Amino acid sequence: MDTMQALVKARPEPGAELSTEAIPQLKPFDVLVRVKAAAICGTDVHIYDWTPYAQARVRPPMVFGHEFCGEVVATGPNVTRVATGDLIAGETHVPCGHCFLCNTGLEHICKDMKILGVHIPGVFSEYAVIPESVAWKLPADTPPLVGAILEPVGVGVHAAYAADVRGATVLVTGCGPIGLTTVGVVKSLGARLVIASDVSEKRAELAREFGADIAVSPLREDLVELARSATSGLGVDVAIEASGAASAVGQALASTRRAGQVVLFGLMGGPVALDLVEDVIYKELNIKGITGREMWRTWYQVMEIVRSGAIDVKKLVTHEFPMSEFEEAIRVAKSGGAGKVVLYPGQ
Amino acid sequence: MDTMQALVKARPEPGAELSTEAIPQLKPFDVLVRVKAAAICGTDVHIYDWTPYAQARVRPPMVFGHEFCGEVVATGPNVTRVATGDLIAGETHVPCGHCFLCNTGLEHICKDMKILGVHIPGVFSEYAVIPESVAWKLPADTPPLVGAILEPVGVGVHAAYAADVRGATVLVTGCGPIGLTTVGVVKSLGARLVIASDVSEKRAELAREFGADIAVSPLREDLVELARSATSGLGVDVAIEASGAASAVGQALASTRRAGQVVLFGLMGGPVALDLVEDVIYKELNIKGITGREMWRTWYQVMEIVRSGAIDVKKLVTHEFPMSEFEEAIRVAKSGGAGKVVLYPGQ
Amino acid sequence: MDTMQALVKARPEPGAELSTEAIPQLKPFDVLVRVKAAAICGTDVHIYDWTPYAQARVRPPMVFGHEFCGEVVATGPNVTRVATGDLIAGETHVPCGHCFLCNTGLEHICKDMKILGVHIPGVFSEYAVIPESVAWKLPADTPPLVGAILEPVGVGVHAAYAADVRGATVLVTGCGPIGLTTVGVVKSLGARLVIASDVSEKRAELAREFGADIAVSPLREDLVELARSATSGLGVDVAIEASGAASAVGQALASTRRAGQVVLFGLMGGPVALDLVEDVIYKELNIKGITGREMWRTWYQVMEIVRSGAIDVKKLVTHEFPMSEFEEAIRVAKSGGAGKVVLYPGQ
Amino acid sequence: MDTMQALVKARPEPGAELSTEAIPQLKPFDVLVRVKAAAICGTDVHIYDWTPYAQARVRPPMVFGHEFCGEVVATGPNVTRVATGDLIAGETHVPCGHCFLCNTGLEHICKDMKILGVHIPGVFSEYAVIPESVAWKLPADTPPLVGAILEPVGVGVHAAYAADVRGATVLVTGCGPIGLTTVGVVKSLGARLVIASDVSEKRAELAREFGADIAVSPLREDLVELARSATSGLGVDVAIEASGAASAVGQALASTRRAGQVVLFGLMGGPVALDLVEDVIYKELNIKGITGREMWRTWYQVMEIVRSGAIDVKKLVTHEFPMSEFEEAIRVAKSGGAGKVVLYPGQ
Repeated sequence: MDTMQALVKARPEPGAELSTEAIPQLKPFDVLVRVKAAAICGTDVHIYDWTPYAQARVRPPMVFGHEFCGEVVATGPNVTRVATGDLIAGETHVPCGHCFLCNTGLEHICKDMKILGVHIPGVFSEYAVIPESVAWKLPADTPPLVGAILEPVGVGVHAAYAADVRGATVLVTGCGPIGLTTVGVVKSLGARLVIASDVSEKRAELAREFGADIAVSPLREDLVELARSATSGLGVDVAIEASGAASAVGQALASTRRAGQVVLFGLMGGPVALDLVEDVIYKELNIKGITGREMWRTWYQVMEIVRSGAIDVKKLVTHEFPMSEFEEAIRVAKSGGAGKVVLYPGQ
Repeated sequence: MDTMQALVKARPEPGAELSTEAIPQLKPFDVLVRVKAAAICGTDVHIYDWTPYAQARVRPPMVFGHEFCGEVVATGPNVTRVATGDLIAGETHVPCGHCFLCNTGLEHICKDMKILGVHIPGVFSEYAVIPESVAWKLPADTPPLVGAILEPVGVGVHAAYAADVRGATVLVTGCGPIGLTTVGVVKSLGARLVIASDVSEKRAELAREFGADIAVSPLREDLVELARSATSGLGVDVAIEASGAASAVGQALASTRRAGQVVLFGLMGGPVALDLVEDVIYKELNIKGITGREMWRTWYQVMEIVRSGAIDVKKLVTHEFPMSEFEEAIRVAKSGGAGKVVLYPGQ
Repeated sequence: MDTMQALVKARPEPGAELSTEAIPQLKPFDVLVRVKAAAICGTDVHIYDWTPYAQARVRPPMVFGHEFCGEVVATGPNVTRVATGDLIAGETHVPCGHCFLCNTGLEHICKDMKILGVHIPGVFSEYAVIPESVAWKLPADTPPLVGAILEPVGVGVHAAYAADVRGATVLVTGCGPIGLTTVGVVKSLGARLVIASDVSEKRAELAREFGADIAVSPLREDLVELARSATSGLGVDVAIEASGAASAVGQALASTRRAGQVVLFGLMGGPVALDLVEDVIYKELNIKGITGREMWRTWYQVMEIVRSGAIDVKKLVTHEFPMSEFEEAIRVAKSGGAGKVVLYPGQ
Repeated sequence: MDTMQALVKARPEPGAELSTEAIPQLKPFDVLVRVKAAAICGTDVHIYDWTPYAQARVRPPMVFGHEFCGEVVATGPNVTRVATGDLIAGETHVPCGHCFLCNTGLEHICKDMKILGVHIPGVFSEYAVIPESVAWKLPADTPPLVGAILEPVGVGVHAAYAADVRGATVLVTGCGPIGLTTVGVVKSLGARLVIASDVSEKRAELAREFGADIAVSPLREDLVELARSATSGLGVDVAIEASGAASAVGQALASTRRAGQVVLFGLMGGPVALDLVEDVIYKELNIKGITGREMWRTWYQVMEIVRSGAIDVKKLVTHEFPMSEFEEAIRVAKSGGAGKVVLYPGQ
């Protein structure tokens, strides 16, 4: 048997379809994976909806999806680090491996990276081919549900480690699954006060479950005022922007104290106007953009968080569907209040 | 004799006037200085022109000016670190001395700082009263001309040290006196390639004198393209924005490589719209605002630069006037192509 | 009434005596404190025993002691930051205030510092004179017992912050009160595995109470072997040496992984022979000595730890005595198994 | 033709012999190099002399040598980054590629690394097989003499970058080729005062040529006293130990100011006794061991230094020999006053 069920972006228009595809061919440096679970990312929704973001990057027809957990069932002849039978997750960003950035420990922001499920075929399918260079071995007893969301969890971990939150007051704007991860991780790293914000009351409540000391809706509370009053007027030491809302960036900057740190990773829909003089220059603020996960520093940190139970990552998953119900799954993922939505290929 | 000639912002309207004023009274923690030279800053032009910036901060009538070199002629009873006869320059930012920022080595961005010549009487006068806490002793043989510009030189030094320019490719946008200082200092700290830009051809030429490998007008050249082509397509390691032009901020961000550093200190006239996703987040850029000078780390660095001749700071001064010709001096300072303009009180 | 009971190092020989002394005179920059509680430090034992360390530093007759909590009862005319009625603790290291180190945020390692109770009269007395520059205001409801030990707690906090323990495996050698503080603080800052060692079984047990995952006697276990086996052979990320035992330094270095960090603050009795090639150079180890507390960054961190209850600092005190029973108190402090020993002057 | 001339450590005893050997077989991830020049390292002298260091690591018979420049003449089937005709140098340390250190950007201190010419056959031969993972492409016009010494130059560059020498006073102890490189590089990175020391007067003189402001013999001058007097009593900001002499380590520590940085890379013959209390703890010194070169950050820095002429690396080579005169070459390399000694295989 050499065919499989796969979710395919068939045409340059909204939608996707489940179809029977040939199991992809292994190349020498690749591994073939039987996908046990895959999770839906905002990027997948872009592809499904065929937004300008997707139009600029994806060439249909192609299997999409990139967050996964699976078992290696075959390996190319040049593969040396993983073996048949290994349970793996995978890094979405496939670095070129030989540019200046790759050669200096910055593979995760390689300028010529390929993105799994965007530039190269993805994982919403029973089988997928993954370059060995992005395979990450998991303990054999990792639940597929957990393995499938380690990639987005990694973004939250990366963000939490990007600032020094030890003993700090921290604002996290945006409490989707990644923001929630950030809340939980900064708390576990010694942040003494975490303020979280989300327009969804449900997510704000989840933030409290993940350890936020205060969780509010920015529609009901003046975040900047709140951040100041909670810090004796000083402002928070660290703000982490996880929502992608333009307004949240300004609030994050204005809420942060002089010489504080702001980490940005939520993706805004367009340019954002900032008061650089008052909010950055006079305050000597430090702003750091982050994306993806460091290879492999972040993954080690993620594994430790899972192992220690510092945060309960399973709680990030709110819905599970057989892949055949992908339309309902995408609908739920777009609904705003959901956490991670997981698909099971072959079901 | 207890009066002096002083340049006074007399009324809440454009202009200033030279008048005879009482020599100010010493308080216990202050020193009285005979001002030997004073330099004109952009802030002074704001005050002269009575811009909204000035209207929001200055309460006439008041002596303004804050960049100076002078001799201590009397000290308050609680003064312990400087003595009559000392030659001093002074830090413009007078920290409160007891807030969290002051208590953790960040006096220069004290939230409650007073600014010399803005919130408290300044130095465009024969005598000035300076809090001991901001007095900086100079070698007795320092030319007053040099002493008077160490404060703005310090901004350029602070900016140059704010990023790691060792072996780096660096873009400096804006070649006023502070930008020129930055160019010279980053070069002396091992930057291998410095690209400087200024709309004034004359300043671009000065940038070459201060060590820029390439100096161009952003009106004639595509800075981003230039930065990339000079770095094999990678982008510069570090960009330092010294112009205050909104367009330069975007150019600085777009010119910088992934994981690079951007230092901002030029003051923009309003909000600046930035493409945070492409220029900051996907690139994991680090942005740092800087203002003023670290107390006193930057001043030690400045003194070393003067002593070693790493840059020829005297070259930053293009015009000198007796203080009585202040109107012409202000006119020159506003003309765009000038370097520092120095006034001599009592002349 | 202008006399007080004080514990005086009367003569250059072992011992000390309780005597009636004049209440010391205030100078303009000083505050007079009524001492509510004072704690015994190893340095005090050196002074009592008149060891070479003490002989080289102390000039009898002098009141000694430096860890205290007290109420300000008078202030010199130049004092601006504290007021009569304030409850304070104090920094032991009195910086000169005008050297390069003091001028660049490193007051706590001023080269010309005076040490309270060593170079200048101390706090084992009903009243003490403290330079305002080292006074640290406490919340009015701080128990004197707690206030008196914040100075040594600060050393443990400073050590814990000196390395990056986020998610790290950490070895702490030596579980006296400062080592215990370090154990508790690194755990609160996200260390995932803390191994503690002390020759005293009782202290090892206390270490477990403060959060150590593993606590052993180095006399019974091979620390290096233990550190490796607990980290899959890699070695710990961070080792913090708090015992002052020469053997512990070697164990700390050998236990730490390549590119790891070692923090040293326990004071060894003499030179220590190290295998720099295998343990430092080939491993690219980072070693950092620390002493005292950063002014005032560490004190803010200490206050937060007390406020949040991240560690229960009261548990560090195992014995309390009226100052009149100082001989018994010193005996207990020297006995090895004790935590902090607190004295109450005037009793 | 499938044989070559090679310098072989034939037996477990002092000496080496030139013999005819089979050209080594390529494996899939390897490249075959025709060696154009190779340089003698201290390690090679250890192997030649069959010291305990060599006895513990080398298994004769084996070709030794590891510093080289050569042309790729064949590539294994899995090789993707270099091609036949490329001119290369190589990293001596062959990392395992899959341990925690390799996976987190620390390949150069991989715990399971193989060392070229020590654990695996080396480059003192007409042809050598090199894992692709350690090949570093050079511009085609790089003189073989220069290419052959980039590896040791890299150690000096790595050391110079390991501390922050911008505007700093720096002591470099030991002026062999690597120490000289360090002197030149720290100067080019903005060190304002460099003091160099070597027991050889000739090397001290070379240090001046490479930019040292002061160069002395530690046998004739008290280095600690000199370092202090040259820094107004403060001590140098940074000391870099390049000699491997135990006495130099103590001098480096004692010469460095409080909160200063000490970089160690010279290899001492045994344990070194240090006064950690006075020299490290009370001074809050930072000590960092370094070894080899970061992959590939250091190599980029090296290439830039060569390209810019920041130091004249050719001057580091004092002797060149056909490989057939290896005995004389080794004798010169052991003589103390020499710089790099280069061999030409096939001559």
